[in-house]
Amino acid sequence: MRKTMPLAGTGLIAAATLMSAGVFAQQPAPGEPRFTSDGQLQRPDDYREWIYLSSGLGMTYGAAVEAVAKAGAPDFDNVFVTRRAYRAFLETGTWPDKTMLALEVRSSASKGSINKGGHYQEGMTGLEIHVKDVARFPATKWAFVSFGASARTAKALPANSGCQDCHSREGAVDETFVQFYPTLVPVAKAKGTFKVAATK
Amino acid sequence: MRKTMPLAGTGLIAAATLMSAGVFAQQPAPGEPRFTSDGQLQRPDDYREWIYLSSGLGMTYGAAVEAVAKAGAPDFDNVFVTRRAYRAFLETGTWPDKTMLALEVRSSASKGSINKGGHYQEGMTGLEIHVKDVARFPATKWAFVSFGASARTAKALPANSGCQDCHSREGAVDETFVQFYPTLVPVAKAKGTFKVAATK
Repeated sequence: MRKTMPLAGTGLIAAATLMSAGVFAQQPAPGEPRFTSDGQLQRPDDYREWIYLSSGLGMTYGAAVEAVAKAGAPDFDNVFVTRRAYRAFLETGTWPDKTMLALEVRSSASKGSINKGGHYQEGMTGLEIHVKDVARFPATKWAFVSFGASARTAKALPANSGCQDCHSREGAVDETFVQFYPTLVPVAKAKGTFKVAATK
Repeated sequence: MRKTMPLAGTGLIAAATLMSAGVFAQQPAPGEPRFTSDGQLQRPDDYREWIYLSSGLGMTYGAAVEAVAKAGAPDFDNVFVTRRAYRAFLETGTWPDKTMLALEVRSSASKGSINKGGHYQEGMTGLEIHVKDVARFPATKWAFVSFGASARTAKALPANSGCQDCHSREGAVDETFVQFYPTLVPVAKAKGTFKVAATK
């Protein structure tokens, strides 16, 4: 059943509209990074609903993962990117401001259930976000934020971190390891944004 | 420049509207399987934009993948599910009619670019769809369709295929291997849909 709105409701609606406008002016759009008032990045709880880019197992390519080649039980890493950044990449071959990539680390297991060999994924042990925010990080444009398994907020790593150094030298596209994301390689090559030199 | 629509256009618009209505009545909603008139499933070109569930490396768990434990270069498999089916699973702990899961097989590589050890993903070598369509497959509810690397359409495997047999016996939830999808396990357990017996 619908109830008739009293006339006084008009004022409430106007106030609510103004409040909403104020909230939207301060808050980032969906898929954009959210920072606390003291500059910490808020953990993006929905990263598993972003676009999947690729996975590795036991990757020892850099400080970002700090993966250890553990005999028998290496870690998986899964990489995701926000949907808005993915759409922009398909059009331009590079990442827009406010891009976030998530690197999720999971332990591996074998011979469970019907599995006889190889490795499958189990519990999440770490989450790192690579965020592009030109106004907030003017010197590097990008920053790395490590949340571990469960932190709700975290500070960016220093601008001279090993992550930053390796990504800016070795990333095939705009400080990111597109050379390891097989569906994005042909896009970047077609758009002329793929730094072949970085991948040798 | 806009041109003035002649009066005869009104009839064209009405006809176009009727045609559209007819088309929409026959076509599945976004994220639902599309079959040709002779019953073949159309390759879902957008599966990489579905929800990612998990990956394995060198998994020898069943006939679905026919993965071979190749020394040094095992295959990755990545599993995705349509967004509408994923949303329904989060609410109910099981899969709605018209669910599609995609199993993508990719070759693995090592020691490329800056990578020093472990395995990362390269070219796609196969795509299999597990589709639930109760009206089309009344006996089994689900069917398996193997597209290989590039087929545009493909027939469902026979109802007595090894895939069907293993999934119906061993799948933890509704003939699917939710025991290997770590983010869905707690959902299914909370909803009471997880068959623990199947995972032993």
